[in-house]
Amino acid sequence: MDHRIPVGVLGATGMVGARLVHMLVEHPWFRLAEVVASERSAGEPLGALLSGADAAGLPSEITGLEVKTPGEALSSPLLLSALPSSVAKEIEEAAAGEGRLVVSNASAHRTDADVPLVIPEVNPDHLALLDAQRSRWPGGIVTNPNCAVAVLATCLAPLHEAFGLERVVVTTLQAISGAGRPGPAAFDLVDNVLPHIAGEEPKIAGEPRKILGTVRDGVVVDADFAVGATAVRVPVLHGHLVSVACSLRKKAAPEEAVAAMSGWRGHVADLELPTAPAHPLEIAEEVDRPQPRLDRDRGGGMTVTVGRVRAGGALHLSFVALAHNLVRGAAGAALLNAELCHARGLA
Amino acid sequence: MDHRIPVGVLGATGMVGARLVHMLVEHPWFRLAEVVASERSAGEPLGALLSGADAAGLPSEITGLEVKTPGEALSSPLLLSALPSSVAKEIEEAAAGEGRLVVSNASAHRTDADVPLVIPEVNPDHLALLDAQRSRWPGGIVTNPNCAVAVLATCLAPLHEAFGLERVVVTTLQAISGAGRPGPAAFDLVDNVLPHIAGEEPKIAGEPRKILGTVRDGVVVDADFAVGATAVRVPVLHGHLVSVACSLRKKAAPEEAVAAMSGWRGHVADLELPTAPAHPLEIAEEVDRPQPRLDRDRGGGMTVTVGRVRAGGALHLSFVALAHNLVRGAAGAALLNAELCHARGLA
Amino acid sequence: MDHRIPVGVLGATGMVGARLVHMLVEHPWFRLAEVVASERSAGEPLGALLSGADAAGLPSEITGLEVKTPGEALSSPLLLSALPSSVAKEIEEAAAGEGRLVVSNASAHRTDADVPLVIPEVNPDHLALLDAQRSRWPGGIVTNPNCAVAVLATCLAPLHEAFGLERVVVTTLQAISGAGRPGPAAFDLVDNVLPHIAGEEPKIAGEPRKILGTVRDGVVVDADFAVGATAVRVPVLHGHLVSVACSLRKKAAPEEAVAAMSGWRGHVADLELPTAPAHPLEIAEEVDRPQPRLDRDRGGGMTVTVGRVRAGGALHLSFVALAHNLVRGAAGAALLNAELCHARGLA
Amino acid sequence: MDHRIPVGVLGATGMVGARLVHMLVEHPWFRLAEVVASERSAGEPLGALLSGADAAGLPSEITGLEVKTPGEALSSPLLLSALPSSVAKEIEEAAAGEGRLVVSNASAHRTDADVPLVIPEVNPDHLALLDAQRSRWPGGIVTNPNCAVAVLATCLAPLHEAFGLERVVVTTLQAISGAGRPGPAAFDLVDNVLPHIAGEEPKIAGEPRKILGTVRDGVVVDADFAVGATAVRVPVLHGHLVSVACSLRKKAAPEEAVAAMSGWRGHVADLELPTAPAHPLEIAEEVDRPQPRLDRDRGGGMTVTVGRVRAGGALHLSFVALAHNLVRGAAGAALLNAELCHARGLA
Repeated sequence: MDHRIPVGVLGATGMVGARLVHMLVEHPWFRLAEVVASERSAGEPLGALLSGADAAGLPSEITGLEVKTPGEALSSPLLLSALPSSVAKEIEEAAAGEGRLVVSNASAHRTDADVPLVIPEVNPDHLALLDAQRSRWPGGIVTNPNCAVAVLATCLAPLHEAFGLERVVVTTLQAISGAGRPGPAAFDLVDNVLPHIAGEEPKIAGEPRKILGTVRDGVVVDADFAVGATAVRVPVLHGHLVSVACSLRKKAAPEEAVAAMSGWRGHVADLELPTAPAHPLEIAEEVDRPQPRLDRDRGGGMTVTVGRVRAGGALHLSFVALAHNLVRGAAGAALLNAELCHARGLA
Repeated sequence: MDHRIPVGVLGATGMVGARLVHMLVEHPWFRLAEVVASERSAGEPLGALLSGADAAGLPSEITGLEVKTPGEALSSPLLLSALPSSVAKEIEEAAAGEGRLVVSNASAHRTDADVPLVIPEVNPDHLALLDAQRSRWPGGIVTNPNCAVAVLATCLAPLHEAFGLERVVVTTLQAISGAGRPGPAAFDLVDNVLPHIAGEEPKIAGEPRKILGTVRDGVVVDADFAVGATAVRVPVLHGHLVSVACSLRKKAAPEEAVAAMSGWRGHVADLELPTAPAHPLEIAEEVDRPQPRLDRDRGGGMTVTVGRVRAGGALHLSFVALAHNLVRGAAGAALLNAELCHARGLA
Repeated sequence: MDHRIPVGVLGATGMVGARLVHMLVEHPWFRLAEVVASERSAGEPLGALLSGADAAGLPSEITGLEVKTPGEALSSPLLLSALPSSVAKEIEEAAAGEGRLVVSNASAHRTDADVPLVIPEVNPDHLALLDAQRSRWPGGIVTNPNCAVAVLATCLAPLHEAFGLERVVVTTLQAISGAGRPGPAAFDLVDNVLPHIAGEEPKIAGEPRKILGTVRDGVVVDADFAVGATAVRVPVLHGHLVSVACSLRKKAAPEEAVAAMSGWRGHVADLELPTAPAHPLEIAEEVDRPQPRLDRDRGGGMTVTVGRVRAGGALHLSFVALAHNLVRGAAGAALLNAELCHARGLA
Repeated sequence: MDHRIPVGVLGATGMVGARLVHMLVEHPWFRLAEVVASERSAGEPLGALLSGADAAGLPSEITGLEVKTPGEALSSPLLLSALPSSVAKEIEEAAAGEGRLVVSNASAHRTDADVPLVIPEVNPDHLALLDAQRSRWPGGIVTNPNCAVAVLATCLAPLHEAFGLERVVVTTLQAISGAGRPGPAAFDLVDNVLPHIAGEEPKIAGEPRKILGTVRDGVVVDADFAVGATAVRVPVLHGHLVSVACSLRKKAAPEEAVAAMSGWRGHVADLELPTAPAHPLEIAEEVDRPQPRLDRDRGGGMTVTVGRVRAGGALHLSFVALAHNLVRGAAGAALLNAELCHARGLA
């Protein structure tokens, strides 16, 4: 008998949803029991809605799942949401209203005062916000950050804990898959980069302050540092690279920063969450690393690789960091949050 | 009769040298009289040493020029140098020793206290340093900045003049042609970016302070601001994009910064230098510009396009800027310096 | 006074239409008088409907043209059509019904028995088919071939004229811009090629036989050779490369083929059509040419560059050829047809 | 105790050699005992000579192997050679002279009358040629084909067996890694393809005829069909795509060709060679497949994927096929040959 918890994936046919489906194959705690996609997919088997490449390697009990539409009755107590933000708000709230726990990659609820925005290794204690949601619905909503913030906030965490951040200037070089399907046109990205990603920079500026903030009296007090972000799209398939400069409350030499980062294991190492990598942060040894193609799959896509930590010239420190935007930045982020919730008895 | 000044190009067969040769075709002031390349090219006609693509469009009086080697006697009073920095020092000094004026793109002499590092629109008065060189040689050496600095320093100039720079954090997304031939391997730049360019960041950190510095008592007093740089290679043919955040001595709103930049014409507009663009700086109107492929050829490659000027979050201002690295960043930079020298009676 | 012929462009806001608009700026014979685009563009100035990149360099009398919709009354006797094929049939026929001459890049009418499919240098005599259209409408419709066929048929013409073609096997490596906007997704073309282009191969197999066919009794008798085609999309912006193998009725050595191709000037050299290149065909000298990026702009994009002509191993000859798909393959093809019609007194 | 056969890898630090080293980790029959590379690598541990990316994932007993130079004494009876062809001839012959069996990916000996050129699934009986080598040396040399031929000959085999090939026209779209390190410059492959690969086409034209030939009286009688090839480099990391048209001795409909290919298991299925894929050929179902990025890793890189089998227009059939050039086309090809030799008692 399969004693695993039945889970549903909302938005299962997009790039992040398909990745979630793959990550749930043979998951030790969760069993993919149902999938939800847009109206026009109703009643079709999941396998018929995925591209050949996205369906490759999925077992028949998963490709054969009949796709449900947003209105239909669900049965799973735990839902993983990869819905587009435009529809996520309504659908996720309805599910919470039915008493389900929704662990969402969508941005719709990230800034709600009573919704935790969580990277398990960084701020697992923010799940305490779920209590405050009880006044809104019997279930709950937990979110993970924007795909670039997942990289950024993870490598800022040990620095903030050790030295206190003051200012952060970041330029992100973001991969194509971060835009979902169909994403940018090939015509715009051959021999080119695009120095603007709609809606991205406010998230990169705001979310790290909530994630690294402190829960007091049931609400998050944002961390007291400033972030300035420039988001650029580059012709890379997967892997967001961030170029970071920061100043600290307590000045640290590069070696101290490296020590703080390389020794950091995060705050859930004891939980042995299935999707957690052995090392949430790794320091690249070679001077020209991390590179998207070479480093995005470290730790199954969950490890953030940091490189080139050095004195910053204008601010205290400069470094680059990278992780797989669909894994650490999206599907894996949501799944790890679901695992954290389960380990804490919330699902 | 051709009354133009005979000029020589040192290092005529590389990417920058070939571009210089093209820019000298039908130049109103200068006539390409001789070309110098490495030993192994001796005696061959220039056309035989250029790739088909580099030779395309050159008239026969230029492709037919017999290539001289570094030791050979030269006749031109004015030399444009696109030599690799490894050999530039010796060859350029020898030429200066013979009384010639060498206008160089090489980095060998940029940091010499008595060698001007010049962007004509920004600091033409630095040519005054040439006087101090008289103790070393009868000729002179004038340099232009690193290709990324050419973009950066040009857009910083009006900000520094109007508000005073304090800190500058820059991430550069640099094109392949900036590495010369053969440059990075295709295998390393498909589905990838490279977060390190050897030797680049110290130049980006140091050169703007000299360029925006002040000549006092025959030497340059560096401008008093700090620069931190991260240099990344991206799969773009031409066009260095810089992502800049900066803080100012006198805080300015984005509109004030735009006004300062868009109204700026530089300090040589009256000289009508042939290679000077109508606008050294242009502000892009669209939110996703400048883009390397779409904007690198503005003003014949000499215009720096600035975009996305906005409040910076962590520092006062953020913006992006771009120009053609082989033109504004190298060949055009040297040629414009030569034109400035001529207009000032120095050549 | 402007004595040029007023012309209209149908489908002026797409990639081909915008290119046509650019090619009409300062055209010696034609004056762009009106532009037509889809309903949703009605009444807006053309400049507002083009991307910044497509609008760059256009004079204000053109960007200011108010866009008409398909139903609206037109005034130009000559129309250049860059309409999508899905709507071209109806709109072009309506215009012909009003007595206008429509020179079209769309595929809608290419296979009609009474519609000439013309490459001016190859088969200008096919315009005789226009007589047969009089039973359908007072105006006329003239078409140019598919963008890959424009390259292929032009280099096959001298071979067919000199030796007679028997079999042609072609693999096309087609550029992204051939797919129009938005075209293939970047995600599908980074580190990849796509071995299928919907609807393309039947055109490549069929159109050359009509173009190289013979007009007899007012209809075209297709040329008697067979074509097999495989169409592949590659990550190139512009420039379709075709890899051709062919057998001939009268066997020819590679040098004979080169002589036939390099000496060929086509059949309209005497007309001095403004858009005709000096050489419709050029033979590349270097063994690794033509290359899309290096050769697509030869002859303003109208020259077909042929390379690597050699004995074929399995069939008599093998070679590669290339031209700019938006110019020789689309906008320039239509414009050259319009010029031919004008020179022949048809417009 | 480790009863596996000790093997050496010649040329272990190149792209193919490094792949071989990886494929030997935990190989069931062979144990990597020694590695040979060029003089300048002498005495260093293998791990220090591989790039970080190439070394990733190798166990310490392999990265710690001290690299030997070509002259040094070897101990392994079986050698896998990934040497550059320029040095392969001499080194491989010396090893054969010492009684070793050299299974080589180099082209140096492929056309020797007494050297088998083998794809195990296609022509395992060609190993009989080894007898004839006894007059030259006590050991033996076995070769695998060129990387594009590995794809081509594997899909031609069932067609030749069932219908007899007459003419084959092929255009190859070859990946960057096929050129080894450093390979083509990024500058030449952004927004471009290169329609020539030095030395490649004669191999593609000649090798399939030997591979599909018949051993009679101790020599191979080449198969009686003609091949014409055009080799193009495209900006793809791995995966050679071939576009094939062919005529047959006995005409076959596309369905018959598909049946012949999809039912084909090759001639060594009974041997259960460790590196042999379950299916040497697979037919892609989707119309736009195989694609390099999506299909190169099928069967661990050893499966050749065929797509778009259809009537050819000019010749009987057309189709496309693809496999991983470093695996099926090089390292895996050599390793599979070594396994075949071992299964046949030759090593």
